[in-house]
Amino acid sequence: MQKKAKVNAAILIIGNEILSGRTQDTNTSTLAIWLNSIGVKVEEVRVIPDEEKIIVDTLNFLRSSHDYVFTTGGIGPTHDDITAQSVSKAFGINYEIHKEAFKILKEYYQPGEFTEGRQKMAWMPQNANLILNPTSGAPGFNVENVFSLPGVPSILKSMLGGLTNDIVGGVPIKSHTISLRTVESEIAKSLTKVQNENKDVEIGSYPFFHAGKLGVSIVIRSEDQSKIDNCNSQILKFVNEKKIEVVER
Amino acid sequence: MQKKAKVNAAILIIGNEILSGRTQDTNTSTLAIWLNSIGVKVEEVRVIPDEEKIIVDTLNFLRSSHDYVFTTGGIGPTHDDITAQSVSKAFGINYEIHKEAFKILKEYYQPGEFTEGRQKMAWMPQNANLILNPTSGAPGFNVENVFSLPGVPSILKSMLGGLTNDIVGGVPIKSHTISLRTVESEIAKSLTKVQNENKDVEIGSYPFFHAGKLGVSIVIRSEDQSKIDNCNSQILKFVNEKKIEVVER
Repeated sequence: MQKKAKVNAAILIIGNEILSGRTQDTNTSTLAIWLNSIGVKVEEVRVIPDEEKIIVDTLNFLRSSHDYVFTTGGIGPTHDDITAQSVSKAFGINYEIHKEAFKILKEYYQPGEFTEGRQKMAWMPQNANLILNPTSGAPGFNVENVFSLPGVPSILKSMLGGLTNDIVGGVPIKSHTISLRTVESEIAKSLTKVQNENKDVEIGSYPFFHAGKLGVSIVIRSEDQSKIDNCNSQILKFVNEKKIEVVER
Repeated sequence: MQKKAKVNAAILIIGNEILSGRTQDTNTSTLAIWLNSIGVKVEEVRVIPDEEKIIVDTLNFLRSSHDYVFTTGGIGPTHDDITAQSVSKAFGINYEIHKEAFKILKEYYQPGEFTEGRQKMAWMPQNANLILNPTSGAPGFNVENVFSLPGVPSILKSMLGGLTNDIVGGVPIKSHTISLRTVESEIAKSLTKVQNENKDVEIGSYPFFHAGKLGVSIVIRSEDQSKIDNCNSQILKFVNEKKIEVVER
Protein backbone atom coordinates (compact mmCIF):
# COMPACT_ATOMS: atom_id res chain seq x y z
CA MET A 1 0.00 0.00 0.00
CA GLN A 2 1.32 3.40 -0.93
CA LYS A 3 2.01 5.63 2.02
CA LYS A 4 -0.25 8.67 2.07
CA ALA A 5 1.05 12.14 2.73
CA LYS A 6 1.06 13.67 6.19
CA VAL A 7 -2.04 15.74 6.73
CA ASN A 8 -2.37 18.47 9.33
CA ALA A 9 -5.02 20.72 10.82
CA ALA A 10 -5.52 23.76 13.01
CA ILE A 11 -8.41 24.24 15.42
CA LEU A 12 -9.86 27.72 15.90
CA ILE A 13 -11.98 28.08 19.03
CA ILE A 14 -14.15 31.19 18.74
CA GLY A 15 -15.66 32.45 21.97
CA ASN A 16 -15.28 35.03 24.72
CA GLU A 17 -16.60 32.45 27.22
CA ILE A 18 -13.44 30.35 26.81
CA LEU A 19 -11.11 33.36 27.12
CA SER A 20 -12.88 34.56 30.28
CA GLY A 21 -12.48 31.14 31.86
CA ARG A 22 -16.24 30.81 32.35
CA THR A 23 -16.42 27.79 30.05
CA GLN A 24 -13.91 24.96 29.93
CA ASP A 25 -13.15 24.04 26.32
CA THR A 26 -13.50 20.33 25.63
CA ASN A 27 -13.91 20.51 21.86
CA THR A 28 -10.14 20.59 21.24
CA SER A 29 -9.72 17.18 22.78
CA THR A 30 -12.80 15.75 21.00
CA LEU A 31 -11.66 17.05 17.62
CA ALA A 32 -8.02 16.04 18.12
CA ILE A 33 -8.83 12.44 19.05
CA TRP A 34 -11.23 12.12 16.11
CA LEU A 35 -8.77 13.73 13.67
CA ASN A 36 -5.91 11.50 14.84
CA SER A 37 -8.10 8.46 14.21
CA ILE A 38 -8.50 9.46 10.55
CA GLY A 39 -4.85 10.39 10.04
CA VAL A 40 -4.94 14.15 10.58
CA LYS A 41 -2.50 15.70 13.03
CA VAL A 42 -3.54 18.83 14.93
CA GLU A 43 -0.58 21.21 14.78
CA GLU A 44 -2.02 24.28 16.43
CA VAL A 45 -5.02 25.50 18.42
CA ARG A 46 -6.01 29.12 18.84
CA VAL A 47 -8.71 30.59 21.04
CA ILE A 48 -9.92 34.03 19.97
CA PRO A 49 -12.76 36.40 20.90
CA ASP A 50 -16.07 36.97 19.05
CA GLU A 51 -14.61 39.85 17.02
CA GLU A 52 -14.98 39.89 13.26
CA LYS A 53 -11.60 41.34 12.31
CA ILE A 54 -9.72 38.90 14.55
CA ILE A 55 -11.73 35.94 13.23
CA VAL A 56 -11.16 36.97 9.59
CA ASP A 57 -7.42 37.57 10.00
CA THR A 58 -6.77 34.44 12.06
CA LEU A 59 -8.81 32.24 9.73
CA ASN A 60 -7.04 33.58 6.66
CA PHE A 61 -3.68 32.80 8.22
CA LEU A 62 -4.62 29.33 9.43
CA ARG A 63 -6.34 28.21 6.21
CA SER A 64 -3.26 29.03 4.19
CA SER A 65 -0.83 27.39 6.62
CA HIS A 66 -2.70 24.12 7.33
CA ASP A 67 -4.44 21.44 5.27
CA TYR A 68 -7.64 21.77 7.28
CA VAL A 69 -9.09 24.29 9.72
CA PHE A 70 -11.92 23.44 12.11
CA THR A 71 -13.73 26.31 13.80
CA THR A 72 -15.98 25.84 16.81
CA GLY A 73 -18.53 28.25 18.20
CA GLY A 74 -20.44 31.28 17.00
CA ILE A 75 -22.95 29.65 14.65
CA GLY A 76 -26.10 30.05 16.76
CA PRO A 77 -28.92 32.59 16.45
CA THR A 78 -27.76 35.39 18.78
CA HIS A 79 -25.90 38.66 18.16
CA ASP A 80 -22.58 37.23 19.37
CA ASP A 81 -22.72 34.41 16.79
CA ILE A 82 -20.67 35.91 13.96
CA THR A 83 -18.70 32.96 12.62
CA ALA A 84 -20.72 32.56 9.38
CA GLN A 85 -20.42 36.22 8.41
CA SER A 86 -16.73 36.22 9.35
CA VAL A 87 -15.97 33.10 7.28
CA SER A 88 -17.78 34.71 4.32
CA LYS A 89 -15.67 37.82 4.70
CA ALA A 90 -12.44 35.81 5.02
CA PHE A 91 -13.17 34.07 1.70
CA GLY A 92 -14.56 37.25 0.09
CA ILE A 93 -17.87 35.58 -0.75
CA ASN A 94 -21.48 36.58 -0.10
CA TYR A 95 -23.13 36.01 3.26
CA GLU A 96 -26.69 35.06 2.38
CA ILE A 97 -29.60 32.70 3.04
CA HIS A 98 -28.54 29.14 2.16
CA LYS A 99 -31.57 27.53 0.51
CA GLU A 100 -30.85 23.99 1.61
CA ALA A 101 -30.11 25.05 5.21
CA PHE A 102 -33.30 27.14 5.21
CA LYS A 103 -35.29 24.09 4.03
CA ILE A 104 -33.74 21.82 6.69
CA LEU A 105 -34.45 24.30 9.46
CA LYS A 106 -38.01 25.00 8.24
CA GLU A 107 -38.78 21.28 8.31
CA TYR A 108 -37.07 20.82 11.68
CA TYR A 109 -39.31 23.32 13.50
CA GLN A 110 -43.04 23.11 14.13
CA PRO A 111 -45.19 25.34 11.90
CA GLY A 112 -44.93 28.94 13.10
CA GLU A 113 -41.81 28.25 15.17
CA PHE A 114 -39.27 29.02 12.44
CA THR A 115 -38.86 32.56 13.75
CA GLU A 116 -36.64 35.37 12.50
CA GLY A 117 -34.08 34.47 15.19
CA ARG A 118 -33.91 30.90 13.94
CA GLN A 119 -33.74 31.99 10.31
CA LYS A 120 -30.41 33.65 11.09
CA MET A 121 -28.94 30.14 11.33
CA ALA A 122 -29.66 29.67 7.58
CA TRP A 123 -27.38 32.61 6.71
CA MET A 124 -24.05 31.23 5.50
CA PRO A 125 -21.23 31.76 3.02
CA GLN A 126 -22.65 31.43 -0.51
CA ASN A 127 -22.64 27.83 -1.83
CA ALA A 128 -21.17 26.44 1.41
CA ASN A 129 -21.38 22.66 1.85
CA LEU A 130 -23.61 21.80 4.77
CA ILE A 131 -22.47 19.73 7.74
CA LEU A 132 -25.57 17.94 8.95
CA ASN A 133 -26.62 18.21 12.57
CA PRO A 134 -28.56 15.20 13.88
CA THR A 135 -28.95 16.74 17.35
CA SER A 136 -30.51 20.15 16.96
CA GLY A 137 -31.18 20.77 13.27
CA ALA A 138 -28.97 23.79 12.56
CA PRO A 139 -26.23 22.69 10.13
CA GLY A 140 -22.58 23.61 10.23
CA PHE A 141 -20.86 24.51 6.96
CA ASN A 142 -17.74 23.92 4.94
CA VAL A 143 -15.95 26.25 2.50
CA GLU A 144 -12.81 24.86 0.83
CA ASN A 145 -10.60 23.56 3.66
CA VAL A 146 -12.52 25.27 6.49
CA PHE A 147 -15.16 23.39 8.51
CA SER A 148 -17.36 25.39 10.91
CA LEU A 149 -18.94 23.52 13.80
CA PRO A 150 -20.99 24.63 16.81
CA GLY A 151 -19.52 25.28 20.24
CA VAL A 152 -21.88 23.08 22.29
CA PRO A 153 -19.79 19.91 22.86
CA SER A 154 -22.61 17.35 22.58
CA ILE A 155 -23.85 18.84 19.30
CA LEU A 156 -20.33 19.09 17.87
CA LYS A 157 -19.70 15.43 18.72
CA SER A 158 -22.89 14.32 16.99
CA MET A 159 -21.80 16.01 13.74
CA LEU A 160 -18.34 14.45 13.34
CA GLY A 161 -19.56 11.09 12.05
CA GLY A 162 -21.11 12.77 9.02
CA LEU A 163 -17.83 14.50 8.21
CA THR A 164 -15.54 11.50 7.99
CA ASN A 165 -16.00 11.09 4.23
CA ASP A 166 -15.12 14.74 3.57
CA ILE A 167 -11.75 14.65 5.29
CA VAL A 168 -8.92 12.94 3.44
CA GLY A 169 -6.46 11.92 6.12
CA GLY A 170 -2.91 10.63 5.93
CA VAL A 171 -1.45 7.70 7.78
CA PRO A 172 -3.18 7.45 11.17
CA ILE A 173 -0.91 8.21 14.10
CA LYS A 174 -0.70 5.30 16.52
CA SER A 175 0.22 5.62 20.16
CA HIS A 176 1.23 3.43 23.07
CA THR A 177 1.30 4.39 26.73
CA ILE A 178 3.44 2.92 29.50
CA SER A 179 2.51 4.06 33.00
CA LEU A 180 5.15 3.75 35.69
CA ARG A 181 5.23 4.09 39.46
CA THR A 182 8.14 6.55 39.45
CA VAL A 183 8.95 10.24 39.09
CA GLU A 184 10.19 11.88 35.92
CA SER A 185 13.68 12.65 37.18
CA GLU A 186 14.33 8.93 37.83
CA ILE A 187 13.89 8.09 34.15
CA ALA A 188 14.82 11.35 32.44
CA LYS A 189 18.34 10.35 31.40
CA SER A 190 17.42 6.89 30.11
CA LEU A 191 14.39 8.23 28.29
CA THR A 192 16.46 10.94 26.61
CA LYS A 193 18.75 8.19 25.31
CA VAL A 194 15.80 6.30 23.80
CA GLN A 195 14.47 9.53 22.22
CA ASN A 196 17.90 10.34 20.76
CA GLU A 197 18.15 6.88 19.22
CA ASN A 198 14.63 7.17 17.76
CA LYS A 199 14.42 10.72 16.54
CA ASP A 200 11.43 10.18 14.24
CA VAL A 201 9.25 8.87 17.07
CA GLU A 202 7.46 11.28 19.40
CA ILE A 203 8.08 10.31 23.03
CA GLY A 204 6.27 12.31 25.70
CA SER A 205 6.58 12.06 29.47
CA TYR A 206 3.65 13.11 31.68
CA PRO A 207 3.58 13.02 35.47
CA PHE A 208 0.25 12.01 37.01
CA PHE A 209 -1.35 11.82 40.44
CA HIS A 210 -3.87 9.05 40.87
CA ALA A 211 -5.39 7.65 44.05
CA GLY A 212 -2.84 9.55 46.10
CA LYS A 213 0.12 8.07 44.26
CA LEU A 214 2.63 9.66 41.91
CA GLY A 215 3.42 8.19 38.54
CA VAL A 216 4.65 8.95 35.03
CA SER A 217 3.00 8.05 31.76
CA ILE A 218 5.29 7.68 28.78
CA VAL A 219 3.47 8.11 25.48
CA ILE A 220 5.10 6.83 22.29
CA ARG A 221 3.56 8.16 19.04
CA SER A 222 4.36 7.28 15.44
CA GLU A 223 2.67 6.31 12.20
CA ASP A 224 4.78 3.12 12.24
CA GLN A 225 3.78 0.42 14.74
CA SER A 226 7.18 -1.32 14.51
CA LYS A 227 8.94 1.87 15.59
CA ILE A 228 6.57 2.14 18.56
CA ASP A 229 7.26 -1.50 19.47
CA ASN A 230 11.00 -0.91 19.24
CA CYS A 231 10.87 2.12 21.58
CA ASN A 232 8.57 0.22 23.91
CA SER A 233 11.16 -2.57 24.24
CA GLN A 234 13.98 -0.12 24.88
CA ILE A 235 11.95 1.66 27.56
CA LEU A 236 10.85 -1.55 29.29
CA LYS A 237 14.49 -2.66 29.31
CA PHE A 238 15.68 0.29 31.41
CA VAL A 239 12.50 0.16 33.51
CA ASN A 240 13.26 -3.46 34.45
CA GLU A 241 16.90 -2.65 35.15
CA LYS A 242 15.84 0.17 37.47
CA LYS A 243 13.23 -2.14 39.12
CA ILE A 244 10.48 0.41 38.49
CA GLU A 245 6.92 -0.88 38.88
CA VAL A 246 4.89 -0.87 35.65
CA VAL A 247 1.29 0.19 36.37
CA GLU A 248 0.04 -0.16 32.81
CA ARG A 249 1.70 -1.16 29.59
CA MET B 1 -9.63 56.81 42.27
CA GLN B 2 -7.91 57.16 38.96
CA LYS B 3 -8.93 54.57 36.42
CA LYS B 4 -6.10 52.23 35.54
CA ALA B 5 -5.31 51.24 31.96
CA LYS B 6 -6.67 48.10 30.37
CA VAL B 7 -4.23 45.27 30.70
CA ASN B 8 -4.22 42.16 28.52
CA ALA B 9 -2.50 38.80 28.31
CA ALA B 10 -1.96 35.82 26.06
CA ILE B 11 -1.71 32.23 27.25
CA LEU B 12 0.70 29.87 25.49
CA ILE B 13 0.02 26.19 26.19
CA ILE B 14 3.09 24.14 25.26
CA GLY B 15 2.49 20.42 24.85
CA ASN B 16 1.98 17.65 22.32
CA GLU B 17 -0.36 15.92 24.78
CA ILE B 18 -2.94 18.70 24.42
CA LEU B 19 -2.70 18.72 20.61
CA SER B 20 -3.12 14.94 20.42
CA GLY B 21 -6.25 15.13 22.57
CA ARG B 22 -4.74 12.80 25.16
CA THR B 23 -4.85 15.47 27.86
CA GLN B 24 -7.67 17.94 28.40
CA ASP B 25 -6.26 21.41 29.07
CA THR B 26 -7.72 23.01 32.18
CA ASN B 27 -4.98 25.58 32.79
CA THR B 28 -6.53 28.12 30.39
CA SER B 29 -9.65 28.35 32.52
CA THR B 30 -7.66 28.47 35.79
CA LEU B 31 -5.38 31.22 34.50
CA ALA B 32 -8.19 33.22 32.87
CA ILE B 33 -10.34 33.29 36.00
CA TRP B 34 -7.37 34.31 38.15
CA LEU B 35 -6.22 36.96 35.66
CA ASN B 36 -9.73 38.42 35.38
CA SER B 37 -9.85 38.73 39.15
CA ILE B 38 -6.73 40.93 39.12
CA GLY B 39 -7.84 43.04 36.14
CA VAL B 40 -6.03 41.29 33.29
CA LYS B 41 -8.05 40.24 30.25
CA VAL B 42 -6.98 37.16 28.29
CA GLU B 43 -7.14 38.10 24.62
CA GLU B 44 -5.73 35.00 23.00
CA VAL B 45 -4.72 31.42 23.74
CA ARG B 46 -2.45 29.29 21.59
CA VAL B 47 -1.62 25.62 21.93
CA ILE B 48 1.62 24.58 20.23
CA PRO B 49 3.85 21.48 20.15
CA ASP B 50 7.09 20.84 22.07
CA GLU B 51 9.23 22.21 19.21
CA GLU B 52 11.86 24.83 19.89
CA LYS B 53 11.48 26.93 16.74
CA ILE B 54 7.70 27.11 17.10
CA ILE B 55 7.96 28.02 20.80
CA VAL B 56 10.55 30.74 20.11
CA ASP B 57 8.64 32.29 17.21
CA THR B 58 5.24 32.18 18.90
CA LEU B 59 6.60 33.57 22.16
CA ASN B 60 8.38 36.42 20.40
CA PHE B 61 5.15 37.35 18.65
CA LEU B 62 2.95 37.12 21.73
CA ARG B 63 5.30 38.97 24.09
CA SER B 64 5.42 41.95 21.74
CA SER B 65 1.66 42.01 21.11
CA HIS B 66 0.39 41.56 24.69
CA ASP B 67 1.14 43.09 28.10
CA TYR B 68 1.73 39.67 29.66
CA VAL B 69 2.35 36.15 28.37
CA PHE B 70 1.82 33.06 30.53
CA THR B 71 3.30 29.80 29.30
CA THR B 72 2.29 26.43 30.72
CA GLY B 73 4.11 23.13 30.35
CA GLY B 74 7.57 21.94 29.43
CA ILE B 75 9.50 22.88 32.57
CA GLY B 76 10.04 19.40 34.02
CA PRO B 77 13.17 17.22 33.93
CA THR B 78 12.60 15.13 30.79
CA HIS B 79 13.83 15.50 27.22
CA ASP B 80 10.49 16.93 26.00
CA ASP B 81 10.66 19.77 28.56
CA ILE B 82 12.22 22.52 26.46
CA THR B 83 10.40 25.65 27.60
CA ALA B 84 13.31 27.12 29.60
CA GLN B 85 15.81 26.77 26.76
CA SER B 86 13.25 28.11 24.27
CA VAL B 87 12.43 31.17 26.41
CA SER B 88 16.19 31.84 26.73
CA LYS B 89 16.55 31.67 22.97
CA ALA B 90 13.51 33.90 22.38
CA PHE B 91 15.05 36.61 24.57
CA GLY B 92 18.59 35.96 23.27
CA ILE B 93 19.97 35.34 26.77
CA ASN B 94 22.03 32.51 28.23
CA TYR B 95 20.44 29.23 29.30
CA GLU B 96 22.33 28.26 32.42
CA ILE B 97 22.14 26.97 35.97
CA HIS B 98 20.17 29.43 38.09
CA LYS B 99 21.95 29.57 41.46
CA GLU B 100 18.88 30.36 43.55
CA ALA B 101 16.78 27.67 41.82
CA PHE B 102 19.63 25.19 42.29
CA LYS B 103 19.75 26.03 46.00
CA ILE B 104 15.97 25.67 46.42
CA LEU B 105 15.95 22.29 44.65
CA LYS B 106 19.00 21.02 46.54
CA GLU B 107 17.30 21.84 49.84
CA TYR B 108 13.99 20.37 48.69
CA TYR B 109 15.41 16.90 48.00
CA GLN B 110 16.87 14.43 50.49
CA PRO B 111 20.69 14.15 50.48
CA GLY B 112 21.79 12.15 47.43
CA GLU B 113 18.41 12.55 45.68
CA PHE B 114 19.23 15.75 43.79
CA THR B 115 20.14 13.78 40.69
CA GLU B 116 21.31 14.99 37.29
CA GLY B 117 17.72 14.69 35.98
CA ARG B 118 16.45 16.95 38.75
CA GLN B 119 19.32 19.41 38.28
CA LYS B 120 17.96 20.09 34.78
CA MET B 121 15.08 21.93 36.46
CA ALA B 122 17.59 24.52 37.74
CA TRP B 123 18.58 25.45 34.17
CA MET B 124 16.82 28.68 33.23
CA PRO B 125 17.21 31.93 31.33
CA GLN B 126 20.03 33.94 32.93
CA ASN B 127 18.88 36.17 35.81
CA ALA B 128 15.25 35.02 35.51
CA ASN B 129 12.99 35.86 38.45
CA LEU B 130 11.82 32.71 40.18
CA ILE B 131 8.15 31.80 40.63
CA LEU B 132 8.02 29.77 43.83
CA ASN B 133 6.42 26.34 43.83
CA PRO B 134 4.93 25.31 47.19
CA THR B 135 3.79 21.93 45.85
CA SER B 136 6.78 20.22 44.30
CA GLY B 137 9.82 22.44 44.71
CA ALA B 138 10.79 23.16 41.12
CA PRO B 139 10.27 26.90 40.51
CA GLY B 140 8.78 28.53 37.45
CA PHE B 141 10.46 31.64 36.09
CA ASN B 142 9.78 35.11 34.77
CA VAL B 143 11.69 37.15 32.19
CA GLU B 144 10.32 40.63 31.45
CA ASN B 145 6.61 40.15 30.65
CA VAL B 146 6.76 36.36 30.22
CA PHE B 147 5.83 34.02 33.07
CA SER B 148 6.56 30.29 32.68
CA LEU B 149 4.52 27.86 34.74
CA PRO B 150 4.29 24.06 34.84
CA GLY B 151 1.68 22.05 32.97
CA VAL B 152 0.39 19.96 35.89
CA PRO B 153 -2.83 21.77 36.87
CA SER B 154 -2.59 21.29 40.66
CA ILE B 155 0.99 22.59 40.74
CA LEU B 156 0.19 25.53 38.48
CA LYS B 157 -2.74 26.49 40.74
CA SER B 158 -0.54 26.42 43.83
CA MET B 159 1.89 28.89 42.26
CA LEU B 160 -0.54 31.66 41.28
CA GLY B 161 -0.93 33.10 44.77
CA GLY B 162 2.77 33.97 44.88
CA LEU B 163 2.51 35.80 41.56
CA THR B 164 -0.24 38.27 42.41
CA ASN B 165 2.20 41.01 43.48
CA ASP B 166 4.17 40.73 40.23
CA ILE B 167 1.23 41.33 37.92
CA VAL B 168 -0.03 44.89 37.66
CA GLY B 169 -3.61 44.58 36.50
CA GLY B 170 -6.08 47.15 35.23
CA VAL B 171 -9.67 47.55 36.32
CA PRO B 172 -11.04 44.10 37.17
CA ILE B 173 -13.70 42.88 34.78
CA LYS B 174 -16.98 42.17 36.54
CA SER B 175 -19.64 39.83 35.24
CA HIS B 176 -23.25 38.95 35.91
CA THR B 177 -25.10 35.89 34.66
CA ILE B 178 -28.84 35.51 34.06
CA SER B 179 -29.96 31.93 33.35
CA LEU B 180 -33.26 31.47 31.58
CA ARG B 181 -35.52 28.55 30.77
CA THR B 182 -35.72 29.33 27.06
CA VAL B 183 -33.87 28.79 23.79
CA GLU B 184 -31.55 31.32 22.14
CA SER B 185 -33.79 32.02 19.16
CA GLU B 186 -36.62 33.19 21.48
CA ILE B 187 -34.50 36.01 22.87
CA ALA B 188 -32.07 36.69 20.02
CA LYS B 189 -33.83 39.78 18.65
CA SER B 190 -34.44 41.44 22.04
CA LEU B 191 -30.91 40.65 23.19
CA THR B 192 -29.43 42.16 20.02
CA LYS B 193 -31.34 45.36 20.80
CA VAL B 194 -29.84 45.49 24.31
CA GLN B 195 -26.34 44.86 22.90
CA ASN B 196 -26.77 47.60 20.28
CA GLU B 197 -27.84 50.07 22.95
CA ASN B 198 -24.87 49.13 25.16
CA LYS B 199 -21.99 48.71 22.75
CA ASP B 200 -19.24 48.97 25.37
CA VAL B 201 -20.64 46.07 27.41
CA GLU B 202 -19.84 42.49 26.41
CA ILE B 203 -23.04 40.42 26.31
CA GLY B 204 -22.69 36.70 25.60
CA SER B 205 -25.42 34.12 25.12
CA TYR B 206 -24.71 30.45 25.92
CA PRO B 207 -27.15 27.57 25.57
CA PHE B 208 -26.95 24.90 28.28
CA PHE B 209 -28.40 21.48 29.01
CA HIS B 210 -28.87 20.70 32.68
CA ALA B 211 -30.89 17.94 34.32
CA GLY B 212 -32.47 17.16 30.98
CA LYS B 213 -33.70 20.71 30.42
CA LEU B 214 -32.62 23.34 27.92
CA GLY B 215 -31.71 26.82 28.96
CA VAL B 216 -29.68 29.89 28.02
CA SER B 217 -27.20 31.77 30.18
CA ILE B 218 -26.71 35.42 29.36
CA VAL B 219 -23.39 36.75 30.61
CA ILE B 220 -22.91 40.52 30.94
CA ARG B 221 -19.28 41.66 31.33
CA SER B 222 -17.87 45.12 31.93
CA GLU B 223 -15.44 46.97 34.15
CA ASP B 224 -18.34 49.20 35.22
CA GLN B 225 -20.92 47.70 37.59
CA SER B 226 -23.53 50.37 36.77
CA LYS B 227 -23.38 49.41 33.08
CA ILE B 228 -23.89 45.76 34.02
CA ASP B 229 -26.86 46.72 36.21
CA ASN B 230 -28.37 48.77 33.41
CA CYS B 231 -28.11 45.88 30.90
CA ASN B 232 -29.46 43.50 33.52
CA SER B 233 -32.59 45.65 33.95
CA GLN B 234 -33.14 45.89 30.20
CA ILE B 235 -32.80 42.12 29.82
CA LEU B 236 -35.10 41.31 32.74
CA LYS B 237 -37.67 43.71 31.26
CA PHE B 238 -38.01 41.75 27.99
CA VAL B 239 -37.74 38.45 29.86
CA ASN B 240 -40.74 39.41 32.00
CA GLU B 241 -42.69 40.62 28.97
CA LYS B 242 -42.06 37.29 27.23
CA LYS B 243 -43.03 35.43 30.43
CA ILE B 244 -39.72 33.48 30.34
CA GLU B 245 -38.80 31.64 33.56
CA VAL B 246 -35.66 32.97 35.24
CA VAL B 247 -33.62 30.05 36.65
CA GLU B 248 -30.87 32.18 38.15
CA ARG B 249 -30.20 35.89 38.26
